[in-house]
Amino acid sequence: MNNNFDKIINHLKSQGFVFQGSEIYGGLANSWDYGPLGAELKNKLKNLWWRFFVKRNKYNIGLDTSIILNPKVWLASGHLGNFNDPLVDCKSCKSRWRADKLIEEKFPDVNAGVLSNEMLEEYISKNDISCPKCKKKDFTNIRLFDLMFKTFQGPLEDDSAKVYLRPETAQGIFVQYKNSQRTSRRKLPFGIGQIGKSFRNEITPGNFIFRTREFEQMELEFFFSPNDENNWFDYWLNQVKHFITKELGISTNNFIIREHEKDELSHYSNKTVDIEYNFPFGRGELWGIAHRSNYDLTQHQQFSGEDLTYLDQENNVRFIPHVIEPSVGVERLLLAILCESYCEEKLENNELRIILRLPIKLAPYTIAILPLQKQQSEKARTLFEDLLQYFDATIDETGNIGKRYRRQDAIGTPFCITIDFDTENDNCVTVRERDSMHQERININDLKSYLTNKSNM
Amino acid sequence: MNNNFDKIINHLKSQGFVFQGSEIYGGLANSWDYGPLGAELKNKLKNLWWRFFVKRNKYNIGLDTSIILNPKVWLASGHLGNFNDPLVDCKSCKSRWRADKLIEEKFPDVNAGVLSNEMLEEYISKNDISCPKCKKKDFTNIRLFDLMFKTFQGPLEDDSAKVYLRPETAQGIFVQYKNSQRTSRRKLPFGIGQIGKSFRNEITPGNFIFRTREFEQMELEFFFSPNDENNWFDYWLNQVKHFITKELGISTNNFIIREHEKDELSHYSNKTVDIEYNFPFGRGELWGIAHRSNYDLTQHQQFSGEDLTYLDQENNVRFIPHVIEPSVGVERLLLAILCESYCEEKLENNELRIILRLPIKLAPYTIAILPLQKQQSEKARTLFEDLLQYFDATIDETGNIGKRYRRQDAIGTPFCITIDFDTENDNCVTVRERDSMHQERININDLKSYLTNKSNM
Repeated sequence: MNNNFDKIINHLKSQGFVFQGSEIYGGLANSWDYGPLGAELKNKLKNLWWRFFVKRNKYNIGLDTSIILNPKVWLASGHLGNFNDPLVDCKSCKSRWRADKLIEEKFPDVNAGVLSNEMLEEYISKNDISCPKCKKKDFTNIRLFDLMFKTFQGPLEDDSAKVYLRPETAQGIFVQYKNSQRTSRRKLPFGIGQIGKSFRNEITPGNFIFRTREFEQMELEFFFSPNDENNWFDYWLNQVKHFITKELGISTNNFIIREHEKDELSHYSNKTVDIEYNFPFGRGELWGIAHRSNYDLTQHQQFSGEDLTYLDQENNVRFIPHVIEPSVGVERLLLAILCESYCEEKLENNELRIILRLPIKLAPYTIAILPLQKQQSEKARTLFEDLLQYFDATIDETGNIGKRYRRQDAIGTPFCITIDFDTENDNCVTVRERDSMHQERININDLKSYLTNKSNM
Repeated sequence: MNNNFDKIINHLKSQGFVFQGSEIYGGLANSWDYGPLGAELKNKLKNLWWRFFVKRNKYNIGLDTSIILNPKVWLASGHLGNFNDPLVDCKSCKSRWRADKLIEEKFPDVNAGVLSNEMLEEYISKNDISCPKCKKKDFTNIRLFDLMFKTFQGPLEDDSAKVYLRPETAQGIFVQYKNSQRTSRRKLPFGIGQIGKSFRNEITPGNFIFRTREFEQMELEFFFSPNDENNWFDYWLNQVKHFITKELGISTNNFIIREHEKDELSHYSNKTVDIEYNFPFGRGELWGIAHRSNYDLTQHQQFSGEDLTYLDQENNVRFIPHVIEPSVGVERLLLAILCESYCEEKLENNELRIILRLPIKLAPYTIAILPLQKQQSEKARTLFEDLLQYFDATIDETGNIGKRYRRQDAIGTPFCITIDFDTENDNCVTVRERDSMHQERININDLKSYLTNKSNM
């Protein structure tokens, strides 16, 4: 399994999907950049989410709030003071560890995330847990480590200037809930979607782009009346499942839906469901759907002193709306798509064919133009520049045709268009489909409409 | 002029384009959020740039690098130590000012940005410049104030953990230039485009969303051989002009192209041109096109020890590529578009009609469905849900029809579709065009293709 993960990671690095961040400077711990193909794929994924959850959903609107907010936001949300990791130091070798992860590494069946700090300390000392580095069993007590990155805004570096990089995009939505509702003149139920960067100063990030300190989120907060009898939780769970399977092409065999146990639930949530994907390194959270009750808006009403209630004119009642939140990280969704689509085949000639079976609408390039010989180069460039105005296209003029097909398979290009000896006479090209390797002869005049139909654009 | 700017700002706030950041907590200095309409418009603008400068340009590829980079990047780029503002404190009232701005406010013809710190101090003392707040003339010497936001990554807050939020997206491109070139197998000339957030801890941000501490950039770095005889500077200047006028619909009367004087140029630049837009508050930089020579890659080669040269196989020469950089801030481009499209008309009945004459492809909503009376509500909702699968659509069922037209004009919706008494009989609706107010009767069966043609989709 991990062998397979290494293969995928190497493939993504060598093809220009993902680069180590600041690589020429020896990198920066757990930081990744998105190369030409990864940037395009990530953009397409974000646009697809935005289209499905914001633009094409009759209930929802969009929003784009700042990364740096008034620090009072984090007092109200509970992040300031409560959003931290329990750390212990090894007294012997001075290495630093997350207490819950130390326990779970030795006892995989224990869910240490739900234990109090006292219980964690007791568990570590009673269960003979040793330092993974020097093997000694002498840890400090737990110290809490704030997960928010802090910085100073303005010319002074004092407490009054202290601000934080948001650890989630959700709070920006709650803070602008009233402005958004008022200006869009929406009635309940309605939702607000947002895409943007968040930052968490995690002690143990890892698994490639699965958990990183800088990451991007796609969050939807759906507001409704507590008296609304529709099951909005199931509605959004189904929308998410539809998106994952139908839009992204992820097989239902490769994820499970796991409802949080009572002791896992945040104190404000009645129900939370995680969609967990079978990554090559093990099962990992992909998408969370949480019923957050009216906790967030109530907190912000209390801390800001603003009235965040909603007047239901029909029933003449006033209340603070309840919220369902489907929330997903862009990078881990991207990773799931890439793992799902990575595939190796042995060809008849024993050659290895690596294919990214990406959905057509996500593939970085929809088409590749391949002139068979130098003589067709000029015709190929003309065709390329023409098609480029309508399709995401690339041109490849080097190496034998088999090698070029392998290259396009490896980056997921659904259609290869070959210009050959006969093109000059019959004005036709060969269109070769990635997954089936089926080839079809198409007249250049019909190419645009043929490709438009094929790619459902 | 400023009166007009206030009107535009109020309009954008009341309609849901821009909100004060963290407003319910009294805001956060100079921070703005993008409401439902602003978020959509901003997305469309970014997608349009990405399409024009990356996807549809045969030379270019995209990239998406991190906000937090290895700090050595900023040593090499010259930002660490040199990227700062010259500040003076008023000894009397303790207020803090930018020395160059103090001078330029009193003497608008002086270009204080080019003066050394010693010259700034001398100028202030010799020219009788007083504190704008308390009117005293007693300033401290200049202290340099670092414009980069700093924070700490990892559990320790010491120098080894210190990192910065990027002050520009450009350096991420230079740092990943080699990886991008290698994996995409590009030959010179080619360009790399990137869109993303940057942060500058400015002392005097202002003019609404024109200059903010957190902002978004769209930058292209175009690499070419110093022996290339094409005039790439003019090529990119023309591309930018084409984009501004043809894609965004900005009139050539409303911007000027200003070439930097010798003493304004960065030491590494042979040529820089600014496109300056006539904002209501005065002329302001919109887009910069800079010839950066091979300065950045040379610096990164030196500081990283990596070989960043390019081998021109045809001529068998090895060199560090030169760079042209067209760079624009998303928010100020958005502001220019909004100022350009804001327009007031007096109607025959003396009513005021506010119109946002946005290009169709940028308008947050392309169409609005307006049932004339309650009886048409159900038919309208069916039509709305159908069209929403193809167009960015909204529905408005409240108020008289004139009021509803005014609302859609005010947010720039190009087409209003009215369902009336006759629709039941003739299966036709009235399509009303925003700018001309021209109305046309269209059969519902033809509506999709009619609107597709009209909106050039």
